[in-house]
Amino acid sequence: MDWFSEELPGQWRQSLPITDKLVDQRSPFQHIQVFDTKDFGRMLVLDGKVQCSERDEFTYHEMLAHVPLLTHPNPQKVLVVGGGDGGTVREVLKHPSVTKVTLVEIDEQVIEVARQWLPSMASGLAPSERLEIITKDAAEAIRGMPKQDVILVDSSDPEGPSEVLFSQQFFASLKEALQPDGVIALQAGSPLFYAKQITDARSKLEKIFRYVRPYLVPVILYPGGAWCLISASDAHDPQRAPAPRSLQVRYYCPEVHLASMARCEF
Amino acid sequence: MDWFSEELPGQWRQSLPITDKLVDQRSPFQHIQVFDTKDFGRMLVLDGKVQCSERDEFTYHEMLAHVPLLTHPNPQKVLVVGGGDGGTVREVLKHPSVTKVTLVEIDEQVIEVARQWLPSMASGLAPSERLEIITKDAAEAIRGMPKQDVILVDSSDPEGPSEVLFSQQFFASLKEALQPDGVIALQAGSPLFYAKQITDARSKLEKIFRYVRPYLVPVILYPGGAWCLISASDAHDPQRAPAPRSLQVRYYCPEVHLASMARCEF
Repeated sequence: MDWFSEELPGQWRQSLPITDKLVDQRSPFQHIQVFDTKDFGRMLVLDGKVQCSERDEFTYHEMLAHVPLLTHPNPQKVLVVGGGDGGTVREVLKHPSVTKVTLVEIDEQVIEVARQWLPSMASGLAPSERLEIITKDAAEAIRGMPKQDVILVDSSDPEGPSEVLFSQQFFASLKEALQPDGVIALQAGSPLFYAKQITDARSKLEKIFRYVRPYLVPVILYPGGAWCLISASDAHDPQRAPAPRSLQVRYYCPEVHLASMARCEF
Repeated sequence: MDWFSEELPGQWRQSLPITDKLVDQRSPFQHIQVFDTKDFGRMLVLDGKVQCSERDEFTYHEMLAHVPLLTHPNPQKVLVVGGGDGGTVREVLKHPSVTKVTLVEIDEQVIEVARQWLPSMASGLAPSERLEIITKDAAEAIRGMPKQDVILVDSSDPEGPSEVLFSQQFFASLKEALQPDGVIALQAGSPLFYAKQITDARSKLEKIFRYVRPYLVPVILYPGGAWCLISASDAHDPQRAPAPRSLQVRYYCPEVHLASMARCEF
């Protein structure tokens, strides 16, 4: 059996047996691979880094979406930046209050690959009056966009196409695109291996938002098995008991929401 | 630089750069190794499996100790089975109500190695009127022992010397050694890779305890990065708001206690 390995150079390496190589292509933006794994179902890999597997993706996508959406009292318009696999949009659409989701993904090949090979995530991308998909650089697309209640940045790490998504300028444009009582969330990195990247993102956000709350999510196939996300808002503190709304979820719950913010450093 | 690798055969492999090999010896029970790692401090390995590192051990030891100790209203006598590195005893001794801790470790070489090479954990093993150390098979030592308020089973996985610690007979002897209102906790395995082992332990415990609560703890260097522990009692439900007692801890807190039980499966 072949093994797939991901390495943080000189720090850590994880290897998994794979049973098939389904996709191996280069888009104008990145190297896109999909593998069938022995224990984790299908797995999406961008530029050599695991993005998600069918088995472990639910913790990340649920926590990225539901923490800010349940911090907001009545989310209607939601923008998702990145997230071309569809998992985050799938979670957002579980909220009946949401009338419009806009997905801005720079790489349309990621969307095509997800639709063909990752149907459990790409179900979020099925044609719907509630969903608009824009394949464009988010830093451009976000200018002049109607104000959003919630913005989710579901990016890869700050290298290559996602580097701009961690800049002070981009964070300012998120705020510009947000209603005054809006809530954002973004993926910030590994608390073990990318601690400085998290600190940087946090301090940039603290310059422009009143509440900035890092939170910790177990993501099995990410380096170290735990990942830091950040939610921020001027009006609503994400670190409070979330709104009681029923959702079909496997990991997110009010206890997990609060605990994820109580302890988020290693 | 050399790398240390741990593999679940055919399922998963994790590799870390090591800067020094400090211990490599075989006791009558197991192969004991200590490495200096690049990013995780010193790391204890038994029979090729990572037990703990200086950097990541706090989540496991805090959650194994404080979940049952804060479920019990007034823990005084505590038995620790296994745990020769000292990390669990160190956490138990943080509770001022505890008057006597008994550590039963089958392999005295683990204790010696920890005392020499892992002082931040072995600090728990420093001579104290509150601590008795017995180097003996726990299945034997537990017979006729005074009744305990809390018993913690800090074992390696159910192979070699720890296999007996997962038997119905041993669980019955834990109950026999426990006060009627006592609380236990044990490590049960990886919810990803050892799901059947957890189900087995849970159903054995459910035959003899009223409350049996699996809970999930992030442990960076364990396979999959998340581990399942189980707490059980006839008198006190571990899945309730824990007693408000102040402790010097880094990971355990009431929010984490409740969330760890709300979501513990993958």
